[in-house]
Amino acid sequence: MGIIVQKFGGTSVGSVERILNVAERVIEEKNRGNNVVVVVSAMGKTTDQLVSLAKEISSSPNKREMDMLLTTGEQVTISLLAMALLEKGHDAVSYTGWQAGIKTESVHGNARILDIDPTRVQSELNQGRIVIVAGFQGLTESANISTLGRGGSDTTAVALAAALKADKCDIYTDVTGVYTTDPRYVKTARKLLSVSYDEMLELANLGAGVLHPRAVEFAKNYSLPLEVRSSMERETGTIIEEEVKMEQNLVVRGVAFEDEITRVTVLGLPHSLTSLSTIFTTLAKSHLNVDIIIQSTTNEKTNLSFSIKSEDLEETLAVLENNKESLQYEGIESESNLAKVSIVGSGMISNPGVAAEMFEVLANNDIQVKMVSTSEIKVSTVVEESKMLQAVEALHEAFELSGKAVHS
Amino acid sequence: MGIIVQKFGGTSVGSVERILNVAERVIEEKNRGNNVVVVVSAMGKTTDQLVSLAKEISSSPNKREMDMLLTTGEQVTISLLAMALLEKGHDAVSYTGWQAGIKTESVHGNARILDIDPTRVQSELNQGRIVIVAGFQGLTESANISTLGRGGSDTTAVALAAALKADKCDIYTDVTGVYTTDPRYVKTARKLLSVSYDEMLELANLGAGVLHPRAVEFAKNYSLPLEVRSSMERETGTIIEEEVKMEQNLVVRGVAFEDEITRVTVLGLPHSLTSLSTIFTTLAKSHLNVDIIIQSTTNEKTNLSFSIKSEDLEETLAVLENNKESLQYEGIESESNLAKVSIVGSGMISNPGVAAEMFEVLANNDIQVKMVSTSEIKVSTVVEESKMLQAVEALHEAFELSGKAVHS
Repeated sequence: MGIIVQKFGGTSVGSVERILNVAERVIEEKNRGNNVVVVVSAMGKTTDQLVSLAKEISSSPNKREMDMLLTTGEQVTISLLAMALLEKGHDAVSYTGWQAGIKTESVHGNARILDIDPTRVQSELNQGRIVIVAGFQGLTESANISTLGRGGSDTTAVALAAALKADKCDIYTDVTGVYTTDPRYVKTARKLLSVSYDEMLELANLGAGVLHPRAVEFAKNYSLPLEVRSSMERETGTIIEEEVKMEQNLVVRGVAFEDEITRVTVLGLPHSLTSLSTIFTTLAKSHLNVDIIIQSTTNEKTNLSFSIKSEDLEETLAVLENNKESLQYEGIESESNLAKVSIVGSGMISNPGVAAEMFEVLANNDIQVKMVSTSEIKVSTVVEESKMLQAVEALHEAFELSGKAVHS
Repeated sequence: MGIIVQKFGGTSVGSVERILNVAERVIEEKNRGNNVVVVVSAMGKTTDQLVSLAKEISSSPNKREMDMLLTTGEQVTISLLAMALLEKGHDAVSYTGWQAGIKTESVHGNARILDIDPTRVQSELNQGRIVIVAGFQGLTESANISTLGRGGSDTTAVALAAALKADKCDIYTDVTGVYTTDPRYVKTARKLLSVSYDEMLELANLGAGVLHPRAVEFAKNYSLPLEVRSSMERETGTIIEEEVKMEQNLVVRGVAFEDEITRVTVLGLPHSLTSLSTIFTTLAKSHLNVDIIIQSTTNEKTNLSFSIKSEDLEETLAVLENNKESLQYEGIESESNLAKVSIVGSGMISNPGVAAEMFEVLANNDIQVKMVSTSEIKVSTVVEESKMLQAVEALHEAFELSGKAVHS
């Protein structure tokens, strides 16, 4: 008899009807003979509503009190799901984060899990109970309630699964798995039956929003198999695990893309060892995330380009302008209406020609590459936004991702 | 520098605007040089909404899970009030029941406070912080979240005040104090400047809903002065304390009343020592509350009358009918459209003529007394509902309660 941890996100528990549906999925797993731990998020838009309430009181609410406020959202869900399971004749008990032994850093709003004491949850499982745990929350060393930040419920589920030495962690969501590319835009997109942790990490970071990168890292560290699957459909999802079983001939596993990208170029920086770090430290202090960075140096000066989300352009320009004196640059240019298109696959490491093939496909389609960034298992390019989907479709076809589901 | 515990009920914190108003009242007390602990209830109708949600899932939701659900209500209020105080520049911190050290019986839905460990709250006060505590909730010995039942926030405030050796506990509500009778019905009703714990207990039990009887008992046991006052108006409220300062000449302090009362009479019970206890045990098992009880015994048989809330009549009759065999009665009669009218005052103990005077006043007004019940400090009568207000007004006048505020 194994232990399965199931995680259901906010949409999956968005109404009483959906909570009753989740209860059915939990009971199905229990009836397969497994011990079941369920991690849930706050119902639908609850968190947003609580944030609005706080914003009525303060434009920047105290973070400790914000955690106190937001954690009520998951507490409502766990109690309702426990009631639903009890009503259906199954023994169940709900636990807040602190009751489930989840200990975090002494940080509010974005704490990391330091340790989990699974004694209480394990003891309930030993008595045959289904245990429902509030995601996204924990307790600091000084007994203050903390939250884990965005994607926190994924992390709770994976960390709890690791602490309980669970056999598997199932992430139930509103899509049926991880796809070769976004099926809403590319009709030939296929569901992947399996991907490696590293591939999933790249895909998650590239905007395939089904799973939080932090949770993937956690699962990788503990070699814990994950499955991303639908809370509404019964079909098998995508397994995320070490790549022992993967096909070797499938070099590229997925094509990811993101629109509304802007390229900013800082012209004429002095040849100073610190000028680069100064620019990015200055931007980071204003919470401006920079993605791809390209530096070109001539004999006299350095030009620096980086990509940002277009919505951050105004603030980025303001920050650079305010720091013109210390940064000592000569001018700034920017180009909006760009998009990022990336290919991901762990097979790339041993296939040095993949990036070249990607550029060739784009060139054949008259798509100009404005920026490039590579890692061991991905190549990202920045192209004109108007040509984004054309690029995605061409790459999806060229790397033989179209068609039926990819087998592991 | 003393410690003041302030309690604000659901109506007083029913909206963001009202929470901001409460923050002002808290700051006023802090600015008087006191250490302030604030106990709050859930916002307005929150608890009712959570109960409805649970009822969508189960007609009789699990009590442990119900406590898990309902305690989120106060947790929302404490965080918002803390944010409001911080926004106004005052150092404040919120605590759930368990964080504030409130330990209860291992019971759900109606737990009593067993003990309070005020270390954490006291330590925050020592650092000059305003401490906001969630009312109505605590933690059982096995670390499950429990609730205190109806009026629980009053009890939290008083118990916390006792544990902190506070100077006073102020109960802020939507009325300006305790009145000689209900001012909504009797225009000459006066606010009492002080009442004794015992008088307040009788008034609370008789439906003057400003304060929960359990909280009054607690305050009495610890000789903790309470003040019932308005959260909207600045005027002084009613002090509840030992009666050392009370006027001796004011025998009756208040007139209480309650409509929709039904009298049930069980006819022809056998002369058995156990028949009475059997009847009331049977009713109690069905959670039917009986108020006034009158027994009349003839040579052969016993007739028993008792008063109940009219809404419980149907169920009471059904319970009696179902147990006819074991109870061995001959018949049942009932009379509805009755009301209870009571006079309360600790001066009665030394004034044996008070009950007689009450009956005379009622007789002079052509009001028939259907049932009577007395204690050391109150006399309750059951009369026709249509004559209830007439009785209240006549008694209010006869016992010289009408006019301006009663001074202590």
